[in-house]
Amino acid sequence: MPSSMTDPAGPRATPTPPTSAAVARRAGVSRATVSYVLNGQAAGRVGERTQAKVRAAAEELGYVPHAAARSLRAGRGSIVLLAAPADTAPAFGSLFTSFLAGFQTALHGLGYTVVLHGAPAAAPLAAARAWAELRPAAVLTLDAPPPDAAAVALLRRSGTAAVLTHGPPAAPGAHTLLLDQHEAGRAAGAHLLARGRRRIGVIRPAEPGLARFADPRLAGVRSAAAAHPDAVVRPLDLALTEHSAAQLAAAWPDLGLDAVFAYNDEYAMLLMRALQDAGHALGTAPDGIGVVGADDLLLGRLLRPRLTTVRAEIIPPERIAALVDRLIRTPDTAPAAHRLGTFAVVARDSG
Amino acid sequence: MPSSMTDPAGPRATPTPPTSAAVARRAGVSRATVSYVLNGQAAGRVGERTQAKVRAAAEELGYVPHAAARSLRAGRGSIVLLAAPADTAPAFGSLFTSFLAGFQTALHGLGYTVVLHGAPAAAPLAAARAWAELRPAAVLTLDAPPPDAAAVALLRRSGTAAVLTHGPPAAPGAHTLLLDQHEAGRAAGAHLLARGRRRIGVIRPAEPGLARFADPRLAGVRSAAAAHPDAVVRPLDLALTEHSAAQLAAAWPDLGLDAVFAYNDEYAMLLMRALQDAGHALGTAPDGIGVVGADDLLLGRLLRPRLTTVRAEIIPPERIAALVDRLIRTPDTAPAAHRLGTFAVVARDSG
Repeated sequence: MPSSMTDPAGPRATPTPPTSAAVARRAGVSRATVSYVLNGQAAGRVGERTQAKVRAAAEELGYVPHAAARSLRAGRGSIVLLAAPADTAPAFGSLFTSFLAGFQTALHGLGYTVVLHGAPAAAPLAAARAWAELRPAAVLTLDAPPPDAAAVALLRRSGTAAVLTHGPPAAPGAHTLLLDQHEAGRAAGAHLLARGRRRIGVIRPAEPGLARFADPRLAGVRSAAAAHPDAVVRPLDLALTEHSAAQLAAAWPDLGLDAVFAYNDEYAMLLMRALQDAGHALGTAPDGIGVVGADDLLLGRLLRPRLTTVRAEIIPPERIAALVDRLIRTPDTAPAAHRLGTFAVVARDSG
Repeated sequence: MPSSMTDPAGPRATPTPPTSAAVARRAGVSRATVSYVLNGQAAGRVGERTQAKVRAAAEELGYVPHAAARSLRAGRGSIVLLAAPADTAPAFGSLFTSFLAGFQTALHGLGYTVVLHGAPAAAPLAAARAWAELRPAAVLTLDAPPPDAAAVALLRRSGTAAVLTHGPPAAPGAHTLLLDQHEAGRAAGAHLLARGRRRIGVIRPAEPGLARFADPRLAGVRSAAAAHPDAVVRPLDLALTEHSAAQLAAAWPDLGLDAVFAYNDEYAMLLMRALQDAGHALGTAPDGIGVVGADDLLLGRLLRPRLTTVRAEIIPPERIAALVDRLIRTPDTAPAAHRLGTFAVVARDSG
């Protein structure tokens, strides 16, 4: 272990960063000139040679404009803050990471910096205050519960032009990016019913933070089943462990079910293996249990039977980035719901 | 589509946020008093009733202290910036998201805010300048290539107390958090050799951004094989698609290999399925091909044969957070390498 890991020295102040005044002195120009050059407003105001001199001085001194100060000059901030509490971020999985990549790239192209703010979940007002300290132009929250009216108002008063939440539900005063989990359940339920299934189990994950997705999915299956008087929908608890799956598979004969919507592909794969190990047939086999997952993971295609799944069809991240940019530029736009996408079934062999 | 998505209005300035001077006027106190109260330095300086008055005025006006301004007063910043370019973040996968959750929670407990800065990969100096604009107390980069000496120097000069990179390689002037991928390859190779395998394929993923992990893993297998004069190590290209896996499985008989280290569990599962579909036996079956993955995903346990895997054993995130805090408080600590963890084989049935 290097010595620095046991260094008993106390706190020390970091060196004072160079200022724009120091750059101005070194380049022999005014501070206004430095500001024009380093903030991309030099055209027609400052000659090429002077611009080069200012840039060289800034380089030599290690001067970097302060994002917040630049925001004030430009009239709007450049930070788009994505609030995703650390303890729920893993629940979003690979769909979230690939969305994030496209969204960040698109916003970067529009001149914004995306920062992902992942403090542990806090009271809405305390969370909003922590976000506001970074003076973001826009805040997009992915956490549950969404900010309340006071939290949204605090963000707006402290200068955040656009507050967006991921819903439903909507947050008072904020825009909502709508991806209705109810539709995922309705699509899965309608698919199983169309294939003749009538006694459908719906997995409720035991893992924390997932109820806000699982509950509306269950309600969606129920709403699809409402059209079939002989259909039964039954919630089933499952943890993402082999032990929990083996228990559910052992209890299966007593449940009287012929199909299951397994929340997502990971729970589906876990349950399929446990059902197979307990001697049950799956999919189109005689007496096969119908299984539907969600997320369309590559691995679902590698199982036998291949996993039927519900896939989110999200609008391109460039369109979401353009929406955020538009809301920042028109901060008085009345809060509205904006559809993020919908869900569709990818039918394979398991259900 | 709501009307706001087609709003043609141009840019408008956001409302000016309330200032601490306005809070001072409303509460009838000095700005210094406001600063003491809202930055947690009121004890022994400001009476309880005055503190309550200041807090109420700040609440009413929606005043939030500015993180950067507060940093200057406290002598150090409160932002720990994690730089992970948007286009490589998905490569880190679930190990990264769960590490991130623990790391964020631990740093939050020490008074820091973690922001994940995910602009597209840029030239080192341009990237460092974008990070420096947020005035972070520490920067931890996860991207490839690591910042060069000029980028590290720019960060230090602009006030960043600690610059840490994820290595190897080390970046000049920066601390290195060391997780040596070479060890993952050596562990996998040594395991296969101990089980009598001598002709080992090593998957090189075709997906971009993974060579920095895959190349040292291949070198690690080679170094394990160096102790066995009869051992052969052969790199194999594979994309994460069923088509690519089927091609490799079809070519397998000509390769003359008896085992494969498949880069990670996803590539391993994909290849196992393709080998099985092409009629090959796996694991301990007669003439079974030995397969080793990496990451210890739950799904690897659900396959038959169960997947043998290499798992990273990372030190607790609280210790990494404490290290970052210590380096921020002692900015003159000489750059050193700090071990993040190592790798161990989880032996199951596939290899």
